[in-house]
Amino acid sequence: MVKITQEIDLYEKLLAKIKEITILNNALGTIYWDMETFMPKGGIEQRSEEIAIMSGLIHERVVEPEIGSLLEKIKQHNNYEKLSDAEKRNIYLIQRSYDQQTKIPKDLVMAYAKQAAIGVEIWKKAKAESNYKLFQPELEKILELTKKQAHYLNPDKDPYDVLLDQNEPGFNREIIDKLFSELRDGLKLLIKDTVEAPNQPDYSIIERKCPVEIQKKMSEDMAKLIKFDFKRGRIDEAVHPFTSGYYDDVRVTTRYIENDFSSNLFAVLHECGHALYEQNMPKKFKYQPVGYYCSMGFHEAQARFFENIVGRSREFWEQYYPRFKELTGEIFADIEFDVFLRALNKVNPSKIRVEADPVTYSLHIILRYEIEKELFAGKISLDDLPKVWNQKMKDYLGIDIEDDAEGVLQDTHWAGGGFGYFPDYALGNIYDGQLLWTMEQDIPNWRDQVKKGDNSKIVNWMVKNVHQKGNLLDALDLIKEITGEELSTKYYLDYLRKEYKKLYSL
Amino acid sequence: MVKITQEIDLYEKLLAKIKEITILNNALGTIYWDMETFMPKGGIEQRSEEIAIMSGLIHERVVEPEIGSLLEKIKQHNNYEKLSDAEKRNIYLIQRSYDQQTKIPKDLVMAYAKQAAIGVEIWKKAKAESNYKLFQPELEKILELTKKQAHYLNPDKDPYDVLLDQNEPGFNREIIDKLFSELRDGLKLLIKDTVEAPNQPDYSIIERKCPVEIQKKMSEDMAKLIKFDFKRGRIDEAVHPFTSGYYDDVRVTTRYIENDFSSNLFAVLHECGHALYEQNMPKKFKYQPVGYYCSMGFHEAQARFFENIVGRSREFWEQYYPRFKELTGEIFADIEFDVFLRALNKVNPSKIRVEADPVTYSLHIILRYEIEKELFAGKISLDDLPKVWNQKMKDYLGIDIEDDAEGVLQDTHWAGGGFGYFPDYALGNIYDGQLLWTMEQDIPNWRDQVKKGDNSKIVNWMVKNVHQKGNLLDALDLIKEITGEELSTKYYLDYLRKEYKKLYSL
Repeated sequence: MVKITQEIDLYEKLLAKIKEITILNNALGTIYWDMETFMPKGGIEQRSEEIAIMSGLIHERVVEPEIGSLLEKIKQHNNYEKLSDAEKRNIYLIQRSYDQQTKIPKDLVMAYAKQAAIGVEIWKKAKAESNYKLFQPELEKILELTKKQAHYLNPDKDPYDVLLDQNEPGFNREIIDKLFSELRDGLKLLIKDTVEAPNQPDYSIIERKCPVEIQKKMSEDMAKLIKFDFKRGRIDEAVHPFTSGYYDDVRVTTRYIENDFSSNLFAVLHECGHALYEQNMPKKFKYQPVGYYCSMGFHEAQARFFENIVGRSREFWEQYYPRFKELTGEIFADIEFDVFLRALNKVNPSKIRVEADPVTYSLHIILRYEIEKELFAGKISLDDLPKVWNQKMKDYLGIDIEDDAEGVLQDTHWAGGGFGYFPDYALGNIYDGQLLWTMEQDIPNWRDQVKKGDNSKIVNWMVKNVHQKGNLLDALDLIKEITGEELSTKYYLDYLRKEYKKLYSL
Repeated sequence: MVKITQEIDLYEKLLAKIKEITILNNALGTIYWDMETFMPKGGIEQRSEEIAIMSGLIHERVVEPEIGSLLEKIKQHNNYEKLSDAEKRNIYLIQRSYDQQTKIPKDLVMAYAKQAAIGVEIWKKAKAESNYKLFQPELEKILELTKKQAHYLNPDKDPYDVLLDQNEPGFNREIIDKLFSELRDGLKLLIKDTVEAPNQPDYSIIERKCPVEIQKKMSEDMAKLIKFDFKRGRIDEAVHPFTSGYYDDVRVTTRYIENDFSSNLFAVLHECGHALYEQNMPKKFKYQPVGYYCSMGFHEAQARFFENIVGRSREFWEQYYPRFKELTGEIFADIEFDVFLRALNKVNPSKIRVEADPVTYSLHIILRYEIEKELFAGKISLDDLPKVWNQKMKDYLGIDIEDDAEGVLQDTHWAGGGFGYFPDYALGNIYDGQLLWTMEQDIPNWRDQVKKGDNSKIVNWMVKNVHQKGNLLDALDLIKEITGEELSTKYYLDYLRKEYKKLYSL
C-alpha cells in the first residue's frame, strides 16, 4: 500500500471512518434480522424508533464533512496516481456514496427508516387479513418518501431511473426495457410450448403433506450441499425468507409449508446462494467498500444460480433423491425419480412469485417492474393498484387473483420501501445464463460433479470469479470481465429452452 | 412541564440527546443478547469489533460537550427552580453520568468493550474445558482495564469503592462490610441449625431426570404465573441465564439441566423478576434517566423476590403442584407434597452459586466480595485465585472444589468485567426482607392469594412501590421511602429464620 503522505496516511484515516460506518450498518442488520425472526410482537414501535435513530446516526456519519475533505485531499495529492486499482475503486465508491447521501436530509433518512419498519409490520397484518385497504395508507407514505428521496438525489432525472441506478449502478429504464422485452418474448413462447405439451408433470406430488420436522432436516442438507458454513451462519424462520449479515456471521431464513415442501427447499437454496456470496467476500478487503457485493442483481444471480441452475437440475436430485426418500419414508415411497423431477420442474403459471418456477418467474418480475414504472410516473393510483395487478396477472400468466394476500400483498418489498429492487431478480437470471455459459467452458463436467454430490468445484468457481471480486467493478463491467461478453438475455433463454425441452421431451 | 426558556426549551433538547443515547444502548443490548443466544460461533471476533465500535460511539455521544453546556445553562437559568422533582432528578442523573463518563477516554471504553466480549467467549471455552490457565490472561487484561477505569473515575478513592458506588450509588466497602458481617453471622447459625437438624429433606428427588420438553412448559407456566408479558418479551436459552431489554421488548434466558429441573424453574422466576421490573417502568418517563431502574441491587431484589420469597414458598407450590404432577406424569408420581416442598427448599451447601438455596446463597456472594476486595487491593495474585477460591469454599460452606469449572470459573461476571457487581445479589436479598415486611402490612393475606394462583396483588404492589418509581431516588432513599426504615439485615434474617424453622420443624 502506497502512503498518501509521509506524516498521516489520509487514505487509512478515510478507511477507518468507513469501517466504523460499515460496522454500524452490520449492527443495524442484526437488529433488522432480529425484528423479522425473534422480536416479540409488542416490540415493534420501540424497535422502529431504535432503527430510525440508528439510521439517522449512521447517515450523520456517512455525510460527515471530514469524509468529503479527506476525499478531496487524497485526490489532489501527488501520490494519488500511485494508489492501486482497488484503492482507487474504494475512493470512487466512497465518493459516489458520499455525493448521494449528502443530498438526503437526515430527517428524511430517519422518517424513511421508521416508516419502513412500521410499514412492514402493518403489511404483515394486512397480508394475514387479506386487507389491502389497511396497507394502502402505509404504501402511500413510503412511496411519497421514496419519491422525495429520489428527487433529492437527482431532481433532473426520472425518479424511477434514480432508484434503478441506486440498486444496479449503470442501469435505467431504457436498458431494462430492452432486456425485459427480449426476456418476455422468449419466456412467453417457452410457456406456451410447455403448458400445451402432452404428458404434463403431476404437480400434486409436491403438495403431499410433509411434516416440518422432516423439512428442517432437508434445510440443513441443502445448505451443507452447497457449502454454506454453519460455523459462520445459521438458518431461522421468517414470514418472508431473506438473508442478512456479512462474512463471519451470515444468516438465512426460510419458511415451512406442510403441503409444499419445495417452498422451503428452494428458499434455503436461494438464501444460501446469497449467503455464500457474503461468506466468501475477499478477506483482505474486509470492511472496505470493495469488500462488499457488486450489485443486488449479482446478489440475486448467486441466489438463483444455486436455487435453480444447480438446485433444480436432474443431477442435483439424482444425488439427493435417496436421502430425500429416506427422510420422507412412506410419503413419497411410490414416486419414481423421473416423475418426481418433472413435478419439481413443472412450468406452472401461478400466483406467488417466490414459489414460481424459473420459466414463469421472470414474468412476475416484469409485471412488478411495469407497475413500479407507472407508479413513479403517476400513471396508476394506489386505489387501483390491486385491479392493475390482477389484470396483469391475467394477461401474462392467465391467472385470476381473488385474494389480495395472493396478489398485490404477497411481497414485503414495497412495504419496506424497496422500489426499484424487483428488476434485480430478473437481471440475476440474465447474469446467471451468462455465468453458466462461461462456467461450462471452465468445468465441462460440472454436472457429473453435482451428480456425485460434490459441489465444491462450482462453488469455488463462483468464489473465484464472483465472490472474491467483491465490488471491484460495476455489474456491467464485471459480467464482461468474467464472460468476455456484453450483458445479453441470449444465454439465459438458451439455457431455459434446453433444460425444459429435455424435461418436456419437446 | 415548565419551559426553561421561552424560545428553545433547553431541557427538552437535553432529553432528546439522552433519548438517542438510550436507544443506542438498547440496540447494543439486543446485540449482546444475540451474542449469548443465537450468534454462530464463528461470529465472535466480528461481533466483538462491532460492540467495541458501538460502545465507542455511544461514549462519544455521552461525553459530547453540548451535554455539559446544556446542563450548565439549565442549572443557571432563572426557571431552574420551577422544574419538577422528576425533572431535577433527570438533570442530576445526567450530570452524574456526564461527570463520570467524561473522565474515561474513548480508547479505554472501546478496549474494555472488546476485551469483555472476547473474555466472555474464552471464559466459555475455559469453563467447558475446566481450564483456568486458558482464562487467566483474559482475566488479567480485563482486571487491568477495570483498574484503569476506576483510576480515571476517581484517582483519590480506593478503586473497589469506585466500582461499588458505580453499581449501587452511595455504597462503599464500609457499608457493605457491616451489612455482610451481620448477614454472614446470621446465616452461619441458620446453616448450622438446618444442616444438623434430624429428618433431612431428600434432595435426590430434585435430581430425577426430567425431559427438557417438559421443563420448557414449566418455564412458560412460571413466567405467566408472575405476570411476565409475553407480548413484550420472550424466553430463550443461554449458557448463563440473564435478562436483557427495556419496556416493550424484554427477554429472559434460562438453561435446561435434565437431572435438575429446579435449576430452570428458579432461573426463569429469577429472570422474570428482573423482566417485570423492566416491563413495568413508568411509561411517562420512557427513555429518560428517571425511567430506568433504581440500582442493580434493586434489580436483584426484584429477581430474588420472585425466585425465592414467592417462588419457593409453600403456597406457590401448593397451587402449582397439581400442574407439575400433570406435566411430569410418572416421574414424581410417588412424591408427597411435603416431601417435595422440603426437597425444593433443602439447605444444601453446594458448589454453584446460581443453584444455591437462599440460606447458603449469600455466603457465595460474600466469598466473591471478599475476593474482589483483595484483588483490587493487590492482595491476591491471579495465579493463586483458584486456591483462594477453594479455600474460602471450604471455610464457609465446607465444600471441596476439585474442578475449576465448578469453582472459580463458574460465573461469567469477571470475564465481562463485572467487578463490584456480586454484592448487589446479597443487597437484593437484604432489600427483599425489608420489602416483604412492608408488603405484609399492606397485603396481610398475600400468601392466600399466592395459594389461589393469583399473584396480581403482589406484582401490582411491586409495580406501584418499586417499578413505577424508576430511578427517582437512590437505593438507600428508595428503601427508606417504601419501608420507612433505614436499610437493615434484620428483616431478611428474620424472614429466613421463620421460613426455615417451619420447614425444618426447628
